[in-house]
Amino acid sequence: MQSEKKSFKKKLVLKSSLAKETLSEFLGTFIMIVLGCGSVAQAILSRGHFGGIVTVNVGFAMAVVMAIYVTGGVSGGHINPAVSFAMCLFGRMRWYKFPFYVGAQFLGAFVGAATLFGIYYDGLMSFAGGQLLIVGENATAHIFATYPAPYLSLANAFADQVISTTFLLMIVFAIFDSRNMGVPKGLEPVVIGLLIIVISSSLGLNSGCAMNPARDLSPRLFTALAGWGSAVFTAGNYFWWIPVVGPMVGAVIGGLIYVLLIELHHPDAAEAGFKTEPLEDKPEKHELSVIL
Amino acid sequence: MQSEKKSFKKKLVLKSSLAKETLSEFLGTFIMIVLGCGSVAQAILSRGHFGGIVTVNVGFAMAVVMAIYVTGGVSGGHINPAVSFAMCLFGRMRWYKFPFYVGAQFLGAFVGAATLFGIYYDGLMSFAGGQLLIVGENATAHIFATYPAPYLSLANAFADQVISTTFLLMIVFAIFDSRNMGVPKGLEPVVIGLLIIVISSSLGLNSGCAMNPARDLSPRLFTALAGWGSAVFTAGNYFWWIPVVGPMVGAVIGGLIYVLLIELHHPDAAEAGFKTEPLEDKPEKHELSVIL
Amino acid sequence: MQSEKKSFKKKLVLKSSLAKETLSEFLGTFIMIVLGCGSVAQAILSRGHFGGIVTVNVGFAMAVVMAIYVTGGVSGGHINPAVSFAMCLFGRMRWYKFPFYVGAQFLGAFVGAATLFGIYYDGLMSFAGGQLLIVGENATAHIFATYPAPYLSLANAFADQVISTTFLLMIVFAIFDSRNMGVPKGLEPVVIGLLIIVISSSLGLNSGCAMNPARDLSPRLFTALAGWGSAVFTAGNYFWWIPVVGPMVGAVIGGLIYVLLIELHHPDAAEAGFKTEPLEDKPEKHELSVIL
Amino acid sequence: MQSEKKSFKKKLVLKSSLAKETLSEFLGTFIMIVLGCGSVAQAILSRGHFGGIVTVNVGFAMAVVMAIYVTGGVSGGHINPAVSFAMCLFGRMRWYKFPFYVGAQFLGAFVGAATLFGIYYDGLMSFAGGQLLIVGENATAHIFATYPAPYLSLANAFADQVISTTFLLMIVFAIFDSRNMGVPKGLEPVVIGLLIIVISSSLGLNSGCAMNPARDLSPRLFTALAGWGSAVFTAGNYFWWIPVVGPMVGAVIGGLIYVLLIELHHPDAAEAGFKTEPLEDKPEKHELSVIL
Repeated sequence: MQSEKKSFKKKLVLKSSLAKETLSEFLGTFIMIVLGCGSVAQAILSRGHFGGIVTVNVGFAMAVVMAIYVTGGVSGGHINPAVSFAMCLFGRMRWYKFPFYVGAQFLGAFVGAATLFGIYYDGLMSFAGGQLLIVGENATAHIFATYPAPYLSLANAFADQVISTTFLLMIVFAIFDSRNMGVPKGLEPVVIGLLIIVISSSLGLNSGCAMNPARDLSPRLFTALAGWGSAVFTAGNYFWWIPVVGPMVGAVIGGLIYVLLIELHHPDAAEAGFKTEPLEDKPEKHELSVIL
Repeated sequence: MQSEKKSFKKKLVLKSSLAKETLSEFLGTFIMIVLGCGSVAQAILSRGHFGGIVTVNVGFAMAVVMAIYVTGGVSGGHINPAVSFAMCLFGRMRWYKFPFYVGAQFLGAFVGAATLFGIYYDGLMSFAGGQLLIVGENATAHIFATYPAPYLSLANAFADQVISTTFLLMIVFAIFDSRNMGVPKGLEPVVIGLLIIVISSSLGLNSGCAMNPARDLSPRLFTALAGWGSAVFTAGNYFWWIPVVGPMVGAVIGGLIYVLLIELHHPDAAEAGFKTEPLEDKPEKHELSVIL
Repeated sequence: MQSEKKSFKKKLVLKSSLAKETLSEFLGTFIMIVLGCGSVAQAILSRGHFGGIVTVNVGFAMAVVMAIYVTGGVSGGHINPAVSFAMCLFGRMRWYKFPFYVGAQFLGAFVGAATLFGIYYDGLMSFAGGQLLIVGENATAHIFATYPAPYLSLANAFADQVISTTFLLMIVFAIFDSRNMGVPKGLEPVVIGLLIIVISSSLGLNSGCAMNPARDLSPRLFTALAGWGSAVFTAGNYFWWIPVVGPMVGAVIGGLIYVLLIELHHPDAAEAGFKTEPLEDKPEKHELSVIL
Repeated sequence: MQSEKKSFKKKLVLKSSLAKETLSEFLGTFIMIVLGCGSVAQAILSRGHFGGIVTVNVGFAMAVVMAIYVTGGVSGGHINPAVSFAMCLFGRMRWYKFPFYVGAQFLGAFVGAATLFGIYYDGLMSFAGGQLLIVGENATAHIFATYPAPYLSLANAFADQVISTTFLLMIVFAIFDSRNMGVPKGLEPVVIGLLIIVISSSLGLNSGCAMNPARDLSPRLFTALAGWGSAVFTAGNYFWWIPVVGPMVGAVIGGLIYVLLIELHHPDAAEAGFKTEPLEDKPEKHELSVIL
């Protein structure tokens, strides 16, 4: 029976590395949304009594930390299409994986939003007398997706998302660059958490600092279907596409700045083809796809 | 005399590993309750002047961190029957130890609650004119045990405790999985502390996020005996059993999700019988009791 | 000239290990008071606008962390007579050093209080129209020393200081016990900082959680001399001696609990004479002075 | 084409170590200002709703952490002329590099201020009806540079900046002194972040704790040019020069205290010429320029 059990277990094991990684990204993004958007939910549904800017910023950051600890050793813990995009563009991941990663991230974020909706179903229902609102003091849509500040023009909003993600990727590249200062192995997720804390404390005012298409679009879609209605897409002068496109642009610029100003000039960089250690355990052997 | 002293000391040394571990779990749960529920006490008894959601969430999390540092090398630092249950179920601890661990945890939590009552005796007495109340703005029962939000149905409350503990165990499994990202040895307690911070910041609104039968039931029993009365059990529509049963269910689901989606697919998992490094110093040699 | 310079330098070098350690404890306690009490000063003098319970608890804790980083490699970073007392009693430091350590700690705390008074001289003068008060909403004496909550009896106050310091020492012993969980070398100060955060968040309400005779008595003496008057000693029903005596008692109990419940039972403890690694770089060779 | 690409890349690589380091200091100071002053901006522009003393202190500290992770392995991550000054004076950097480091720091801070102005352009414009003010409740100049508290005399202000920077450098020297307690390699930036948190929580009330000429003067100059006007220099009784000169004095005193009281007395210090490990990767071989 022992050996039967073992062979049953073996059947469950995924042979394909890509399948494992896809599953991992799904789980990671799911965790990030439940715990991250959950921190926003607790602050809003308690009207500030059991949460505020500190618990939201620290909570979302630690949600990312935990998601990376769960998935980092398997899929690199991207949990963000903009990160996956930069990783492919700078030769740290093969392009054929990109759609699988991104698909898993969008799906994980959607299921995460639905799970959070379930956890706080009673709270959401009692908050505004059964109504699910997008604007006003009883609004709850911003638990799930980001909305721009009233003062913000679309141009400034776009620049905001580009620049935030530029900082995110520039510093993530530094954190994983073992030829620079070097975060001790296994503590990179915590330092990324500190990075999220500072970015959301400094660049979060304009539009909530999504920096992640999956984190923003999937929960927004969920709210559209779950009762908040299609106005979640028209709100803020059709703001919805900005946290989707802006981060992709910013991720490229951030990676580029780090490579051009720092990584390129490491003593042995020229010989190594400007390729730093990949995030994945086993370095991929493929033709150089770095954009430089 | 020197050698007499030495032999006296030798008499005190526990030969039995199980006795040591039981003592350790008792001490750990005691520490968690005094410092953890103490953080709640400081916030409530000062009516928010010397504590609030940030000090409570950070305080309880760091209470867990300290409890694990005191006990981790001896008994694995479970300080939670739901954790011990999952450890047994997934082959990381032998079942015969389970009642000893759980007994020590319930006893430690009870003594911890009594100690905290002593430390804040004057404060509790002056808070509501000598009355020990369960509801209202002068309530103090929730210093010790958790109570549900007014909006919460029993079904949602049960789901809440199951899902919170699912996240707790899923991520604890990741933190101790050396084949994943890998928290540096000796820093696992701190990362678990960060995990408690994010869970209590995101999933704490419904019912205070006990996730631990010993942490909730023992202090509740203490309050029943110490003057708050038996209404601590009837409050919230007999809510008391939910943080006892829910975490046991959630712990199993959380472990299962991590094993099925991540651990099972590690390159060498099939050969190793899906058994990761045990939390204890000396790996136990026993027939496989993993549920998979 | 180069060699002259060198020989001049050599003259400055302290040959005596004890002289070095005394200097180190002086500097460490000085740093702790300026930055720690400084955090209280900022919160009080800004009437809560630029500080509160979070910045005070985190600030004082990180002041301790920094003091230990500056002095830990030289004198073990005690910066607290209660810690030095426990270290001597449990055979981790020789008794002849005790008066030097404690003297340096009291002196360092006094100079630290004077320095902080200088830094915030203008602020203190403008806060209450030039008056230095001990009670009322314009009080500033509690920037420097601790005072009991109005509800607190002397008996409860004494128990409070004993128990807080019990927890402090019990967990400090665990943090430096390499046969337990094991904080990575060089990170012990940070974990001690987290410990101070949780203790001051949970057990700080009764009387501000001094847990350190030097931290409390020296600044109190300074305030008596600097203009607050001798009432700093009579306040709270002559409370001043409690944070002096209580911590000494608590430190012994804390060390004892850890040794009896945990350390004694480590597999190789009986042979090693129950002596864990000393905090100092070079282990002292002397007759066993452990109390057990 | 592959080899052409490679040779093109090689052309971009900076041969000169000094050029690399200059670029690195520019980038680091830029990051610190955008994320650090950004944390102040978010608190002020939201009138405290999305930021306060905790997010500002943690945000600025983590901005420094991230700047050091990006630049530490290349230029030592000074991002502060006072730090570079102390490093030269104590023989940890050659003097000829000093003007390049400082120039890069001032330029990076200026570009950082301009970038932050761009990111929050809409917010700044809507905050005070299009006006850029230096005093009053609608003031925004203190987002960029520091201003003294109303009660503060110039003498106290100068002492404040000297003493804050004394503590900063004294403890930074300890953090990088591997013969003392020893922060684990790669975690020094995080411990420096904790240091910034405690200094800004304790010594920040008088004048905002700039401790860095580049961090204060460059953004102040930017505000003068960008619309706040020349009153940014006359405000506070011509306060502007104090966070420029004070930190230079404090850095020397801080380094001196650490070397005289601690470093000098390390067992092997006399032989080694009192020179600790330089911050840079490759130790410089030059005549001793230590001031002792």
